[in-house]
Amino acid sequence: MTTEASTDAATAFVPGHITGFFSTHPADTPVESGSRGAGITLTHGVDVCVAEGTGTTLNGEHVSVEPVDRVLDMLAIDVAVTAETPLPLGAGFGVSGALSLGTALAANAAFDCGRSENELISIAHNAEVESGTGLGDVVSQARGGVPIRLSPGAPGYGLLDGIPAPSQIEYCTFGELSTESVLSGDTTRLTNAGETALETLIERPTLDRLMTCSQQFAREAGLLTSEVAAAIEAVDAVGGSAAMAMLGQTVFALGTGLSDAGYEPSVCRTHATGASLRLRE
Amino acid sequence: MTTEASTDAATAFVPGHITGFFSTHPADTPVESGSRGAGITLTHGVDVCVAEGTGTTLNGEHVSVEPVDRVLDMLAIDVAVTAETPLPLGAGFGVSGALSLGTALAANAAFDCGRSENELISIAHNAEVESGTGLGDVVSQARGGVPIRLSPGAPGYGLLDGIPAPSQIEYCTFGELSTESVLSGDTTRLTNAGETALETLIERPTLDRLMTCSQQFAREAGLLTSEVAAAIEAVDAVGGSAAMAMLGQTVFALGTGLSDAGYEPSVCRTHATGASLRLRE
Repeated sequence: MTTEASTDAATAFVPGHITGFFSTHPADTPVESGSRGAGITLTHGVDVCVAEGTGTTLNGEHVSVEPVDRVLDMLAIDVAVTAETPLPLGAGFGVSGALSLGTALAANAAFDCGRSENELISIAHNAEVESGTGLGDVVSQARGGVPIRLSPGAPGYGLLDGIPAPSQIEYCTFGELSTESVLSGDTTRLTNAGETALETLIERPTLDRLMTCSQQFAREAGLLTSEVAAAIEAVDAVGGSAAMAMLGQTVFALGTGLSDAGYEPSVCRTHATGASLRLRE
Repeated sequence: MTTEASTDAATAFVPGHITGFFSTHPADTPVESGSRGAGITLTHGVDVCVAEGTGTTLNGEHVSVEPVDRVLDMLAIDVAVTAETPLPLGAGFGVSGALSLGTALAANAAFDCGRSENELISIAHNAEVESGTGLGDVVSQARGGVPIRLSPGAPGYGLLDGIPAPSQIEYCTFGELSTESVLSGDTTRLTNAGETALETLIERPTLDRLMTCSQQFAREAGLLTSEVAAAIEAVDAVGGSAAMAMLGQTVFALGTGLSDAGYEPSVCRTHATGASLRLRE
């Protein structure tokens, strides 16, 4: 097997991404489709190594990831994808988007495909949209920071802004929630709540307002589970600020909110940068 | 005096930015004005600390920086700006743009101005354009990586892409070159050469092509000085790739190009991220 030492191997790091609130915006083409909303990228993310070979492994286990296969189809190459992440799966951290974007970036570098960053982001975004696995993770993960999705779609279509405020982030996960099942249902109520939250955030783009908008969205969209609601209340009771990750049974808090409330969270930070390739030595 | 320990202080890091080629695009408003072109952001940059007080210092010396004053005017605050950088001044590293953008980001954080990242980038971009000190550094420094300016202007107007290829970068500076004096002269020849270079790069956005397009631009625009031309030739003679920084008497090379040619360059890397605030502990 080839390894990172091979000249035909490259590794990309893609930050995790938690969405606090969103609205869905389907369109005729994948590049125009997407979501509006806001969230947080994390220093906890996914390392994606691409080398000669076939098949995808995630944390040492063989997996089948539809958007990764779609990315490789669009680049017209067949390679081995080896990914590692400390993030929980299916719990609202954008692991699927990270695998797609990391595969696009690393495959382009390893096999000299000659695509630009916007082209690779578009390929990964389209793969996610067509697989039904995500609408806004890829563009957010390509940007980094605390991204606001002002308009939906791939680069050249969607417009992003950001909240200029780095922070420590804590998170706890109580279980999975299927993105596909929520997005394939009636999203009218959710989208109305998301549009209202975005209007409120844009008036004053701060972390505090991101959290209050996200809390209200989770309630109005009817997505709160009892464990998640209890954790958000517990953080609030100790003067902290927490919200639910869309879409997962996950609570995230600013600073030391979850620790202060007696939970044992994973601890990371907002990630200053978007997805990037590792410099080959 | 207040220090970084004050709650009303914040520090931003802004990467240096070398432009390889460009075309100028004046417009009726500063947000629409700018340049097209491509370049490289650097891990060598400017740390900008904003705190209560007045006046600007750079590497310990009091300085007057018109775009910094304009940024503070636009934010309607008066603060002390303390900046440190290892980069040479007036030599094509975007120090002026870095000071403007760093001041905007840090002042917003320290004094709770509630602006979004796009708003702060626009403020710094406008300050540079109105001061005549730069056209494309701020948007490139906000983005990071190896930025391609597809269309001119501030966020919402200009469109950026990037070359997905991190690299070690070496640079040597032989003296200053005034951005104002070049930009205030006849830029027709320069802009024609820049437009041709951009078309060629977009066909295949790789680092190698960025360097060859930049070399050709410097020749066609008539900006090469003898020391710069000699260094580019010397790097070429040992199989490396170097070009001239716009606008400065500076040569930059991929990998170990300048060392291999017998120069004693400063060594850094492409910077994965755009400008960012330091996380306050």
